[in-house]
Amino acid sequence: MRDQFHDQLDSVFGDLAAICRQVETAVSQATKALMTGDVILAEQVISADAEIDRARERVEESSFNLLSLQQPVAGDLRTVVAALRMVSELERMGDLSVHVAKIARLRVPEIAVPEAARETMQRMAVVAEDMVVRVSQIITTRDVEAAIALGRDDEEMDQLRRTSFAELLSDDWADGVEAAVDIALLGRYYERIADHAVSVANRVVFVVTGESPRAAS
Amino acid sequence: MRDQFHDQLDSVFGDLAAICRQVETAVSQATKALMTGDVILAEQVISADAEIDRARERVEESSFNLLSLQQPVAGDLRTVVAALRMVSELERMGDLSVHVAKIARLRVPEIAVPEAARETMQRMAVVAEDMVVRVSQIITTRDVEAAIALGRDDEEMDQLRRTSFAELLSDDWADGVEAAVDIALLGRYYERIADHAVSVANRVVFVVTGESPRAAS
Repeated sequence: MRDQFHDQLDSVFGDLAAICRQVETAVSQATKALMTGDVILAEQVISADAEIDRARERVEESSFNLLSLQQPVAGDLRTVVAALRMVSELERMGDLSVHVAKIARLRVPEIAVPEAARETMQRMAVVAEDMVVRVSQIITTRDVEAAIALGRDDEEMDQLRRTSFAELLSDDWADGVEAAVDIALLGRYYERIADHAVSVANRVVFVVTGESPRAAS
Repeated sequence: MRDQFHDQLDSVFGDLAAICRQVETAVSQATKALMTGDVILAEQVISADAEIDRARERVEESSFNLLSLQQPVAGDLRTVVAALRMVSELERMGDLSVHVAKIARLRVPEIAVPEAARETMQRMAVVAEDMVVRVSQIITTRDVEAAIALGRDDEEMDQLRRTSFAELLSDDWADGVEAAVDIALLGRYYERIADHAVSVANRVVFVVTGESPRAAS
């Protein structure tokens, strides 16, 4: 009975890693759509989100079945509940990629990110995407060290966000209100993707060690 | 055994309603701080958030104990898992109130919301706050009709957000980039508070009826 439980639990974590790879694609394509004004790619991110939602529902059903039929206790119970939370966060990261794609689509044939904001925004996108890639691996390997390191790297995102605000509030900003509002919201979306990535990594730490890293609070 | 379970479950829902009332206070005080530039009130919202976080931890512990010691199945199991999700959303609503309070604090002695954006922003705040007040009641009474009605009223928030963008992107906007960025982010925070309120209400519908309202998707 316990073996069957752990097989099913592994399968749930396999599904979580697969959803995380779908999120990777969403973040990467949304960024490309944003930076190039590619409306077809933006549409693709928006329509692919329904698959992430369905995958989330399947993980929720599997987790409920595990709770209901196998009645896990202690660490096993906490692991299943952690899986339920991780899948909510992954879905949310998909939604945030859709928000990025929608801003890209809204500005076509223009490009939402003006030259003056491009370098910082591109770096935010790279940091966010890299964190999502690493979270997929962390879910698969349950590597606690890597999970804790991810939490530390979130600081670069905070710094980039400050840089981005400084750019659009400087006297040199010549791209007007609309671009500034887009940049502020895009920055917020990438920052939230990174926050959720850290949170998912922290849940992996909790699943493996039974304790949350300090950074989780 | 079942009676003890349902008593404990009622107590968890009582705690959820209490947290929701703390969120009510946070939203209301953050808005007041924002609209009047009251830095002391803003600080109060920011520091009170730790209490919401602690209350969330207590609900999580109680819910785990319920799952672990009472091993609920079927509807009872789904209700406990719903409570765990509701408490995450309520905590998030508290965090969003803190974001509003931080923008208020950042602009003191100025007021972040210029005259041209004031009416719409005030209305967004009123709608968000009203939704939080109604969610407290919905958690307590488990009133499915009221919960479904809440989902419908979310449309006013979407409309207000469009109005707010139209204001700050109009040729008449004379308040510059910084105020526009503040307004865009504040609008986003109130919108997310409303989204979470709808989501919590939908979970109450699910707890009572076993089904999610269509609006939940």
